[in-house]
Amino acid sequence: MTASSIANRSLSDLARQTRAAARNLAALSGADRNFAVSAIATALAENAEAIAAANAEDLVAAAAEGIPQPLQARLKLDASKLQGAIAGVRGVEGLPDPVGLVQIRRELDAGLILERVTCPLGVIGVIFESRPDALIQIACLALKSGNGVILKGGREALHSCRILVDVIHRALASTAVDPAAVQLLTTREEIRALLSLDSEVDLIVPRGSNAFVRYIQDNTRIPVLGHADGICHLYIDATANREQAIAIAVDSKTQYPAACNAIETLLVHADAAPTLLPAIASSLRERGVTLRGCERSRKIVPMAAATDEDWATEYCDLLLSVRVVDSAADAIAHINTYGSRHTDAIVTDDAAVAETFLSQVDTAGAFHNCSTRFSDGFRYGFGAEVGISTQTLPPRGPVGLEGLVTYKYRVVGDGHVADTYSGEDAKPFTHRDF
Amino acid sequence: MTASSIANRSLSDLARQTRAAARNLAALSGADRNFAVSAIATALAENAEAIAAANAEDLVAAAAEGIPQPLQARLKLDASKLQGAIAGVRGVEGLPDPVGLVQIRRELDAGLILERVTCPLGVIGVIFESRPDALIQIACLALKSGNGVILKGGREALHSCRILVDVIHRALASTAVDPAAVQLLTTREEIRALLSLDSEVDLIVPRGSNAFVRYIQDNTRIPVLGHADGICHLYIDATANREQAIAIAVDSKTQYPAACNAIETLLVHADAAPTLLPAIASSLRERGVTLRGCERSRKIVPMAAATDEDWATEYCDLLLSVRVVDSAADAIAHINTYGSRHTDAIVTDDAAVAETFLSQVDTAGAFHNCSTRFSDGFRYGFGAEVGISTQTLPPRGPVGLEGLVTYKYRVVGDGHVADTYSGEDAKPFTHRDF
Repeated sequence: MTASSIANRSLSDLARQTRAAARNLAALSGADRNFAVSAIATALAENAEAIAAANAEDLVAAAAEGIPQPLQARLKLDASKLQGAIAGVRGVEGLPDPVGLVQIRRELDAGLILERVTCPLGVIGVIFESRPDALIQIACLALKSGNGVILKGGREALHSCRILVDVIHRALASTAVDPAAVQLLTTREEIRALLSLDSEVDLIVPRGSNAFVRYIQDNTRIPVLGHADGICHLYIDATANREQAIAIAVDSKTQYPAACNAIETLLVHADAAPTLLPAIASSLRERGVTLRGCERSRKIVPMAAATDEDWATEYCDLLLSVRVVDSAADAIAHINTYGSRHTDAIVTDDAAVAETFLSQVDTAGAFHNCSTRFSDGFRYGFGAEVGISTQTLPPRGPVGLEGLVTYKYRVVGDGHVADTYSGEDAKPFTHRDF
Repeated sequence: MTASSIANRSLSDLARQTRAAARNLAALSGADRNFAVSAIATALAENAEAIAAANAEDLVAAAAEGIPQPLQARLKLDASKLQGAIAGVRGVEGLPDPVGLVQIRRELDAGLILERVTCPLGVIGVIFESRPDALIQIACLALKSGNGVILKGGREALHSCRILVDVIHRALASTAVDPAAVQLLTTREEIRALLSLDSEVDLIVPRGSNAFVRYIQDNTRIPVLGHADGICHLYIDATANREQAIAIAVDSKTQYPAACNAIETLLVHADAAPTLLPAIASSLRERGVTLRGCERSRKIVPMAAATDEDWATEYCDLLLSVRVVDSAADAIAHINTYGSRHTDAIVTDDAAVAETFLSQVDTAGAFHNCSTRFSDGFRYGFGAEVGISTQTLPPRGPVGLEGLVTYKYRVVGDGHVADTYSGEDAKPFTHRDF
């Protein structure tokens, strides 16, 4: 037996245990599920020192290995970050129960009632990078929504992930939730094995780069909720309000440049460019932004030349590409060619142009006269979020608990058979909604 | 250049034309889209003779090739079937517009409004078997929901598919819809090419066997709405009403045995089996059903022995496997092991047992005291259906127009920037739903 087939077999056993635990979890009341989430918050607070110590081990190793500074920063789980994570868990506890919602209630005929009711997905596999606080949030979202969860964190966060799952397991032991509902994978080989378990795992949530999400999609039959990069745009129309255009450009680029909802490309209408582009460029440069532009924009504001590659790049940095376009239609065409269907905004005082832009731009977030940085589950009022999906199918955009539930149709009758409603003298359905 | 890369390139051009036509289609009003659907219904009626003649060519070829009789029957598109298909198109015309529905409307802060609005997916690829009437229904569902559609029918239906798409194109020429929104692929090689166009095609709907749906899933990055086989169960509990148990078993198996919502396995509680199983077996045998049973059921009613393979088989025929179980929990475990998450029913007079079954059975349709044959978009009152999805994620079960739309978040402000809501003196969001 090869190492990989052993990994496959043992992981498959583990996934079956998770599935069994998830079935029991799904049968619990919302109060029982919330009690488990609450127990985790309490246990995290009680074990803060041990968690910080384990995290310190990861940080020392990361520094020794020369892991890039931003990654080290994300890896850090100090007292203040843990406090924030615990507050997040309490927030999840306070969210409405996503399970058992009746979406449709319809009489098909007298005494024959159809209901569509939300229910957990089953078992969710989450593959995330270094941030150990993501583990806490995702585990609690999964339990709140009645799902088992198999977690795979980054190798550099191993000690942190181990103690967090250990604390979660001990917390769950005092609740109605079987600790086996939360599992941790620790080796890279297990990712491949996890992706092959399409009969035991119902959804994969990869959190990482576009390339990583693509790799996952190419190597599994399991549905993928991709939290991928964002190539977001801001289009300044001919009739844009000058102050709004400057403020929104600055906020969308610089408020948090590493965020997926920050803009990478600024599109400016040719009529507005001569007066507006210099002012916007100067405000951005004051905040340390480097610009790369098309030929036309470079004639208005001197800057390095942008290449085709720039239009397709998420910089995650204080870099912005700039292009002058002749119309809103050209801006929409540029976005629909190079965008990643994340978030794209227009600044205009022309209501008709705004409506065309909002309806034709192919994106999860179509914004008018506001910053792209609002594209976020917390800001939308969804509470915690699983990720921001750049896929076309629902759930897309910022995804909260609703991405972790599905529904089933329940039909309850009193001996009803389909033959009554078929053939020559078929009885008609009433199809009456309650 | 290989034949396959030529197919790839030309199909990619065609898909881009479809995408462009779909973008225009998406910008049309519901009335314009409905007018296009109506024009198709009219054109089909006007071209009934030519359609029948083209279909006759396919039928002659199919008979000459010795294609199995049931397939020949499905291939047939005579005057009466076309009449039914046209009525179906009129039905689609009458369905509520799935585009532009506001699902969420929320104030984030004064003057900053979030809306979640349904919109078309874009371009849908549909791969279906011999039934040419499926082409008509799917094309009209796609247009109604504002989507472009690339259709690939069975080789044996080539003449029928060609004339139908030709009639649709001519009908659309007199409407606001660009005929390029509907495309027909005619060769098998194009399926592979279609599956690789993940930047041009947003959803693949394969209609065929489980193996076919699996093949599609394994060979594309495009989301798949799988219309696959159903391994449906009926469980007769200890407290089942005798008459209901018999009637529901007969209807679920024999009302239309080839349907995906017909049952393949009957599970009977050990306490009910001695009295109920003989009566059910006799009623089923009267209707030509052959039974295969577990050891315990064979001691009550003589029948052939069932193997493990039987529990995992969709017969699509007058065949039924039978198993005696000791409890509802055992029935649920059997279904969750062998079922295909399609439709599974319980007959019981015990409300608590029914509730446990409905909540714990892992299926899109969980039924109580009624036939599994009700699991159908028309019977649920959804009008036309794209297919019945056996996937866990929504849309699952019978999928109507809602499976062909997604949504986008629109945020409209008046110069709002995220920085206002961040840091020390962050302004709070109001998050007030309208």
